[in-house]
Amino acid sequence: MDTVIKNGLIVTVAGTFAADIGISDGRIVQIGGTVEPAFTTIDAAGCYVMPGAIDVHTHLDTPVGDGFTADDFGSGTIAAACGGTTAIVDFCKQDRGRTLAEAIDTWDRKAAGKAAIDYGYHVIITDPTEAVFEELPSLPERGITSFKVFMAGKGFEMIDDLTLIRLLDSARQIGALVMVHAENGDAVHYLQQKFVSEGKVAPLYQSPSRPARVEAEATARAIALAEVVGGSLYVVHLTCEEALDEVVRGKMRGVNVMAETCTQYLYTTKDDLDRDGFEGAKFVFCPPGRTIHDQEVLWRALRNGLLETVSSDHFVTTYGAQKDVGRNDFTKIPNGGPGIEERVMMLYQGVNRGHISLAQFVDLVSTRPARVFGLYPSKGTISVGADADILIWDPNAELTITNERLHHAVDYTNYADRVVKGIPKTVLLRGRVIVQDRQYVGSPGEGRFIRRHRTSDSRHPVPKPAA
Amino acid sequence: MDTVIKNGLIVTVAGTFAADIGISDGRIVQIGGTVEPAFTTIDAAGCYVMPGAIDVHTHLDTPVGDGFTADDFGSGTIAAACGGTTAIVDFCKQDRGRTLAEAIDTWDRKAAGKAAIDYGYHVIITDPTEAVFEELPSLPERGITSFKVFMAGKGFEMIDDLTLIRLLDSARQIGALVMVHAENGDAVHYLQQKFVSEGKVAPLYQSPSRPARVEAEATARAIALAEVVGGSLYVVHLTCEEALDEVVRGKMRGVNVMAETCTQYLYTTKDDLDRDGFEGAKFVFCPPGRTIHDQEVLWRALRNGLLETVSSDHFVTTYGAQKDVGRNDFTKIPNGGPGIEERVMMLYQGVNRGHISLAQFVDLVSTRPARVFGLYPSKGTISVGADADILIWDPNAELTITNERLHHAVDYTNYADRVVKGIPKTVLLRGRVIVQDRQYVGSPGEGRFIRRHRTSDSRHPVPKPAA
Amino acid sequence: MDTVIKNGLIVTVAGTFAADIGISDGRIVQIGGTVEPAFTTIDAAGCYVMPGAIDVHTHLDTPVGDGFTADDFGSGTIAAACGGTTAIVDFCKQDRGRTLAEAIDTWDRKAAGKAAIDYGYHVIITDPTEAVFEELPSLPERGITSFKVFMAGKGFEMIDDLTLIRLLDSARQIGALVMVHAENGDAVHYLQQKFVSEGKVAPLYQSPSRPARVEAEATARAIALAEVVGGSLYVVHLTCEEALDEVVRGKMRGVNVMAETCTQYLYTTKDDLDRDGFEGAKFVFCPPGRTIHDQEVLWRALRNGLLETVSSDHFVTTYGAQKDVGRNDFTKIPNGGPGIEERVMMLYQGVNRGHISLAQFVDLVSTRPARVFGLYPSKGTISVGADADILIWDPNAELTITNERLHHAVDYTNYADRVVKGIPKTVLLRGRVIVQDRQYVGSPGEGRFIRRHRTSDSRHPVPKPAA
Amino acid sequence: MDTVIKNGLIVTVAGTFAADIGISDGRIVQIGGTVEPAFTTIDAAGCYVMPGAIDVHTHLDTPVGDGFTADDFGSGTIAAACGGTTAIVDFCKQDRGRTLAEAIDTWDRKAAGKAAIDYGYHVIITDPTEAVFEELPSLPERGITSFKVFMAGKGFEMIDDLTLIRLLDSARQIGALVMVHAENGDAVHYLQQKFVSEGKVAPLYQSPSRPARVEAEATARAIALAEVVGGSLYVVHLTCEEALDEVVRGKMRGVNVMAETCTQYLYTTKDDLDRDGFEGAKFVFCPPGRTIHDQEVLWRALRNGLLETVSSDHFVTTYGAQKDVGRNDFTKIPNGGPGIEERVMMLYQGVNRGHISLAQFVDLVSTRPARVFGLYPSKGTISVGADADILIWDPNAELTITNERLHHAVDYTNYADRVVKGIPKTVLLRGRVIVQDRQYVGSPGEGRFIRRHRTSDSRHPVPKPAA
Repeated sequence: MDTVIKNGLIVTVAGTFAADIGISDGRIVQIGGTVEPAFTTIDAAGCYVMPGAIDVHTHLDTPVGDGFTADDFGSGTIAAACGGTTAIVDFCKQDRGRTLAEAIDTWDRKAAGKAAIDYGYHVIITDPTEAVFEELPSLPERGITSFKVFMAGKGFEMIDDLTLIRLLDSARQIGALVMVHAENGDAVHYLQQKFVSEGKVAPLYQSPSRPARVEAEATARAIALAEVVGGSLYVVHLTCEEALDEVVRGKMRGVNVMAETCTQYLYTTKDDLDRDGFEGAKFVFCPPGRTIHDQEVLWRALRNGLLETVSSDHFVTTYGAQKDVGRNDFTKIPNGGPGIEERVMMLYQGVNRGHISLAQFVDLVSTRPARVFGLYPSKGTISVGADADILIWDPNAELTITNERLHHAVDYTNYADRVVKGIPKTVLLRGRVIVQDRQYVGSPGEGRFIRRHRTSDSRHPVPKPAA
Repeated sequence: MDTVIKNGLIVTVAGTFAADIGISDGRIVQIGGTVEPAFTTIDAAGCYVMPGAIDVHTHLDTPVGDGFTADDFGSGTIAAACGGTTAIVDFCKQDRGRTLAEAIDTWDRKAAGKAAIDYGYHVIITDPTEAVFEELPSLPERGITSFKVFMAGKGFEMIDDLTLIRLLDSARQIGALVMVHAENGDAVHYLQQKFVSEGKVAPLYQSPSRPARVEAEATARAIALAEVVGGSLYVVHLTCEEALDEVVRGKMRGVNVMAETCTQYLYTTKDDLDRDGFEGAKFVFCPPGRTIHDQEVLWRALRNGLLETVSSDHFVTTYGAQKDVGRNDFTKIPNGGPGIEERVMMLYQGVNRGHISLAQFVDLVSTRPARVFGLYPSKGTISVGADADILIWDPNAELTITNERLHHAVDYTNYADRVVKGIPKTVLLRGRVIVQDRQYVGSPGEGRFIRRHRTSDSRHPVPKPAA
Repeated sequence: MDTVIKNGLIVTVAGTFAADIGISDGRIVQIGGTVEPAFTTIDAAGCYVMPGAIDVHTHLDTPVGDGFTADDFGSGTIAAACGGTTAIVDFCKQDRGRTLAEAIDTWDRKAAGKAAIDYGYHVIITDPTEAVFEELPSLPERGITSFKVFMAGKGFEMIDDLTLIRLLDSARQIGALVMVHAENGDAVHYLQQKFVSEGKVAPLYQSPSRPARVEAEATARAIALAEVVGGSLYVVHLTCEEALDEVVRGKMRGVNVMAETCTQYLYTTKDDLDRDGFEGAKFVFCPPGRTIHDQEVLWRALRNGLLETVSSDHFVTTYGAQKDVGRNDFTKIPNGGPGIEERVMMLYQGVNRGHISLAQFVDLVSTRPARVFGLYPSKGTISVGADADILIWDPNAELTITNERLHHAVDYTNYADRVVKGIPKTVLLRGRVIVQDRQYVGSPGEGRFIRRHRTSDSRHPVPKPAA
Repeated sequence: MDTVIKNGLIVTVAGTFAADIGISDGRIVQIGGTVEPAFTTIDAAGCYVMPGAIDVHTHLDTPVGDGFTADDFGSGTIAAACGGTTAIVDFCKQDRGRTLAEAIDTWDRKAAGKAAIDYGYHVIITDPTEAVFEELPSLPERGITSFKVFMAGKGFEMIDDLTLIRLLDSARQIGALVMVHAENGDAVHYLQQKFVSEGKVAPLYQSPSRPARVEAEATARAIALAEVVGGSLYVVHLTCEEALDEVVRGKMRGVNVMAETCTQYLYTTKDDLDRDGFEGAKFVFCPPGRTIHDQEVLWRALRNGLLETVSSDHFVTTYGAQKDVGRNDFTKIPNGGPGIEERVMMLYQGVNRGHISLAQFVDLVSTRPARVFGLYPSKGTISVGADADILIWDPNAELTITNERLHHAVDYTNYADRVVKGIPKTVLLRGRVIVQDRQYVGSPGEGRFIRRHRTSDSRHPVPKPAA
């Protein structure tokens, strides 16, 4: 063996049990039994041994305003790793007038030599020309099996319903998954203009300019379009009861609709937008945070299996410079916030509080996103043959979150001064230790591109046993 | 090692992967790696290797009319084993005027020396005296952590709402789970009398005498009572969209409500009650089968994780003699039918048809019921340290179901002439082969009583890693 | 003509228009045109001329504890008249062991010589023996076409579901309407005992002992039972969104379910139960008041036509003596409160505030209850041939409500110090002025018993034109 | 008096009663009493005397293809009159590049000298320029208080959500009502193209190209947009349970949303699209007919007051010529069908069958549309001061509908060979008889333009009594 992890309590969605793990050539080769001596032995006593976390919603090195999000594949993936995440699926954004292939090439360059963990891409389609629709079937061949479009962002990324229904039908045919940012962009545009025209320009107006009903409406619409063509849909960053109701109604009608929420919607509210000075700008997400009641509804949905994962939607811009552009007009504040490192630790507090079980936690941060997005079975679980992406978790260690203690390249966190209990102790990427006691000890660039399976296969896979 | 299972494809809810399994002292001790030589080596090439199935709803050797259900713990558990089931939780029914302890003693005698597989009990409370409420806290100490009551059966088992709400509150305090047969017994009684008085006595009147709304009403009521006291509820044999809607509404409100459906509700309908002659009597279940639409709704609910398991509700009486009592009055036909052996094979057809994934199948027949009812982590998964209750499944083998090919002690099956693809090849109970190629090769009486954990712990367990 | 009302603005659900009204022999004989000279001419300039209000939920001279409600048919109907009400349907309660006929005879004696306005009865069935079911068909012959039962009041009035479903089916056959007090009595009983055993005996515990879900549950159950037998149902005193949801779900399924709310649920909340000292006892209704949100939901339901009327549920006991019995145990406080005089004025404030239209107001206080309960077409509208029960309403006059200014025989009002704009100026009963400027000027005993039509006819009547 | 109607049974939403009616100067001046002798006396013995019906959804002389709908204001309003309708609100369609004022002028010319009954206009906005938004406030001044937009008709009338939300907000400010054709035009476009590309060009593909979900989606979206800005919305031609659910959900949330259905959705289904030969083209409505279940749901909604009216959506093109354009491509068939004459008679069959009451019938065909669209109190009821638009209805007369017996200028009816019981005997427009025994006896051109009140006033009007 190359590596043995001893004395830990293995936690997968199938069970929690004490066993040693043997790793060879970057893969798990043995669970339990007498594991033969190894070069490296890790003592996981007192810790959980879980599959590395997977974050399927990040925006690294992405164009915003005149520049880019503050984390590139270097700082972003190191931060992810330090938070216990061993794989991300980043959003690769098409430039207008360019092909999807060009976008992918660009993202390959961004990641090359920098990525600390493994990564895949969803492609964001912003310019849905005929050529783009012709290009689509080639993407799964390149391991890219999910496409995202925006129902908001009028004048920018926003696509119309014809593009969406066509994409849902096309994706169905090639076994890919359509992801939507579900807000009615026309309504948002109208409300934004209205507030600005009335001089209501402070960050707090982010909330009424993007009300829950506007999110729920677009969610319902996307589900209806998927229903009509038999397509599959994944709703990103669902925030509220109104939108959840639509997802559940869709499921009950038999639509293959899935959704995620994000860390910030479990821990912040619209009231944070009204913090003193311009501090609210840090909480300008899209959609905005909602209410305490919505937080409860989301935890309940997680417990009942109605949401697939909790992602970070890590889209970071500096408070000091980038967010400041919108000091006199909230509509100019770049939306988004950090979370790539905080996500797993924050969600784990839901285990401590009894919101979700330990198995559900593992499912939400790793197994289910791996299944939904075609990373499984190499990623997302601890099983023989899987990549040895392993998160050794100390459930008793505590950390007070401060921005200094985080590894992203942005000047704030939305979780400052929160005390979390339960943090990553050791993180392995394909068998190599890349984080130890919150220090990154890996080699930038060792992260590899993940060719993902067709998502149509990953939800209900029936692998054939070898005869 | 005592036993090694080689060359199979292990299937758990956490993943599907090729690995050998080492078994020692009745437990799984190693997964993958080089398993040391064993006394017994089982070649599972071409097969899935799954945790043994668990059936949490059986009625063996149970009083009915002047006698007992046709399967006792001997024939019943052998049939279960041949179908791939390695553990049951049987309903242990209190006699009126007797204590729960007496009921448990009786059931211990029924099982002793006969059980081919492991077994636990739910206690059915039929006489909810003060003494019984005082006795309740002692049951978890004996490993019995779920209690069932009937909202139907007027004049017999039916309890009133005061008993139910009190039981929900009491069970909450002792970490136990309340199971309900949810039909409005007064409404059923009224409709039965009405039909009989009008000379409508054929089996087909079973359906309109127990309409879907009557089931949904009781389901909603039990959920409301659980909500009021913060209790946990498990609805047995849910059959229809109307009742499912109530469960989902309850979940969305934050009530800890769970439900199961049964094999027969996925494959038969009320039209079967109108078969020629008295054949409909074989389909007199309680509640009755519903419609094709309801079958679709139930499959969809299974796919969406909204139901916990598919149980058999195996309650068998002979068609030739016991069912015949109701030849001239459907209300006298003993309710219930077989399924303890057919269940796993029938549910697997849902994998073949794409209704559910392979992982969901394993979850539904084994992992989830083990978790919900406190058999986990010894049962319900393949993990190091778990009991070596293992089902080796040949996904390519076919079987035409006939009553002659089944092992129960009753003279019919509701699935006659159906061809199933995917059947048990080998079944191990705690490491010993008890079924091989559909032949029972075990020793009656080797099944053991399972002391179940408190159900309050089993849904969201947070086991502590050893320091 | 005997009487002419001139210069008023007639308001009916069909329209608002200026016209004079001619009255002869107690009936309206002419609307508009040149009305011939009359003995009495009433100048209604500046006022609305509306049909007299109808209160279908009162409890006069009704047994409570060792005595009776504080208002008998004398004081109660005078108070009603002064509030603009010209007809009530009072609850006539069967004593245990007695026939319904005896109850009716008793109520006839209570009303005789005292009633200031016309009156009918609903019969409350408390002892549903076979004899009572045999007696039922005779009631519509006596003009009593609605029966009420209680789903709460364990050990007292509470009936079981078998009685309810049987009654729904029986009433359907004879064209009568079943009214239910919808709360789960077992749950209430359990919660009451629990609170009392914990020493929680103040009035404020009335609220958590009868939570909204307990009301919604019983509402849903009654609707389900009506659905099963095709019966008609009227839910009294609906208070909350949860119960309204059930009514709307029932309507959408095609069940003939109707419901009312009461004045107090539009204007008070559970917080009133926590008033200083024992003052909360005045707000011990059954069900209790809910929340501001529920008030909004109820107004919305009125505007959307989802509730049939707003009744008073006038059930008065003196604060100083009768309510005081429960000073140390809220479960002993007689439930109920005043409203027979306040009701119409209070509901009218909803017109002032824009909650409902003027036509809806008339519909809710007069026309719809007349239709639902078979008083129509003699009562409930201004049309030729109808009884000249007329309410002349001054929309500009204001009144500060105090108990001294009210006419009931109880020592408090729940609306003290509220200022209402819009009050009765003149009230006519069958053409005679009985109230003038808030003074009763009629003759006690002139109210007559109303033989009501079968309620099955009253909702969808198709009277045949004379050939 | 000019005219007296004697011996009839007056039917209004407020009641049904025998009384004579006196008419002078085109208005009702007396109801009941001794009506002074008149020039004209109409004997209404054996008949109902009701307010003239109002059809708020017609398309007369409207551009379609290279021509116009087959009925102009001459034939169309004569047909309406013969069916019992005394007022219509026709859709006045803006041409692209033209002002709304020009559209109104055009419609004035179409109606002038031809209209047999009174008429108003809704303006259809097809070109929502800034100039149009500036023009909007002037429309209520001209008596036009409702605007319609299309969410379908991609490339033609379809507007985007920004226009819709802006219009809802603008209309709110000026007290007008927004009407929407609610179907997702992008989805319809996609499905149409798909079917045509697959050679599925027969009329029956009209149904799957415009599925119920596509209608429900747009309905939900329009409601959401109204909710966000506090606007009022009226959904035209609602056809199905899915869309009704959205309307009810909106009402329960407090949105001021109203909807109508049309005759054809109560009597035809999608199966009619599959009639032999090209006959299905006659049933190419937009949206298409649905199912028997939906018909039941719509009747139920009418009974429960959840829909405002049943309109005709009379949009006629000849089967022989105009519909024939789409013989080889269903997408080219002009949508729409006749009903302006059949509507009232067809809806009345719902009274005969017990679906709705007589009062509800009057409300649906006359009173409620008058209120919603600001024709009230001059139109929509029988009250002193109202226009003497009166429909004398013989409930016992029968008619077998054939196209020959109808008065429209198109070559088919969708109700051929249906026997209706209950037909108009005499129709009066402002006191003059215009139809007698199904013969038009009026003078074309005597119909007048109706200046409608602001619709914000008409739902909850509180007229002030004269002091």
